[in-house]
Amino acid sequence: MTSFTIIGTGNMGDAIGGVLAAGGSDVTRIAHAEAGTAPLTGDVVVLAVPYGAVDGIIAAYGDQLAGKTVVDITNPLNFETFDSLVVPAGSSAAAQIQEKLPSSSVLKAFNTTFAGTLASKQVGGLPTTVLIAGDDTAAKDALAAAITAGGVTAIDAGALARAHELEALGFLQLTLAAGEKIAWTGGFAVAR
Amino acid sequence: MTSFTIIGTGNMGDAIGGVLAAGGSDVTRIAHAEAGTAPLTGDVVVLAVPYGAVDGIIAAYGDQLAGKTVVDITNPLNFETFDSLVVPAGSSAAAQIQEKLPSSSVLKAFNTTFAGTLASKQVGGLPTTVLIAGDDTAAKDALAAAITAGGVTAIDAGALARAHELEALGFLQLTLAAGEKIAWTGGFAVAR
Repeated sequence: MTSFTIIGTGNMGDAIGGVLAAGGSDVTRIAHAEAGTAPLTGDVVVLAVPYGAVDGIIAAYGDQLAGKTVVDITNPLNFETFDSLVVPAGSSAAAQIQEKLPSSSVLKAFNTTFAGTLASKQVGGLPTTVLIAGDDTAAKDALAAAITAGGVTAIDAGALARAHELEALGFLQLTLAAGEKIAWTGGFAVAR
Repeated sequence: MTSFTIIGTGNMGDAIGGVLAAGGSDVTRIAHAEAGTAPLTGDVVVLAVPYGAVDGIIAAYGDQLAGKTVVDITNPLNFETFDSLVVPAGSSAAAQIQEKLPSSSVLKAFNTTFAGTLASKQVGGLPTTVLIAGDDTAAKDALAAAITAGGVTAIDAGALARAHELEALGFLQLTLAAGEKIAWTGGFAVAR
């Protein structure tokens, strides 16, 4: 059984924690404000915070993240313009985080599923699907198993380079919801 | 009623032509090999060809595309590596085409829907949805109306800048299908 520490107490942290706990995983929650002081007991650390908060968490925990799987769920939008991402063109938040944590296995996941669809486990009648990108296959498999055990579908979306595409999808989905083209309980479903 | 000329006789041209004709639009088909010799009778020209063939069509028709709506459906993948796009990072095939056709209204559409889901008009039980990006709202509205009349959902996905995200989505979807994570009759459905 995989043990998780989720940093962040927002609705995404709640939804992810709910899925993982439902699947029998050991889940510990840490508030963003406690970063650096609360211990990282999990093998997998989920950064369920906005992209702008990630650097502070990395600084706070330093070497304690080495050897762990780190899950980046962020959509690094410029939330003032809603018209671009704040990461370099062609790159991704996940790639930037992996650069800063060379001894961790960074995975991109949960950025293409709204909290509501993780909680309900369905999108438009189809099973909610978490797309996972990363270079560490064993880490991806462990996360996928924990998600699947919690009643949500997981698909390996490829190498960490595909985080660029996952973040584009997350960006697009946010603009569609903000523009009221889709509901926050809807979005992109995956039909297999 | 909008009149369409579709260049390209592949399965995407067939599927798009089928939807538009079902909606009562006037649809003319031109084979890629006839580009430049067959007349562009439609107000809207759909480039239903691979990205690598677009430049030749633009050269063959030259000024005849001016004043028309040009619909780019391409996914500009590097099909040798299946690991990147052949357009500059942060840009899109559609933006590149718009640069080459400054007197046309370029729209991005149909690159996120497989031919099979346009033909069946459903993805995993949800209505097939064509995402349209472009800077010309009237052109987008006309295309959306023609698609909707044909029994397929259309959503305005924003400015032409969003073609980057649509192409990322199309790229991701192609890698998932090529990797047998999803079927060619499946893919991303849009739940509203």
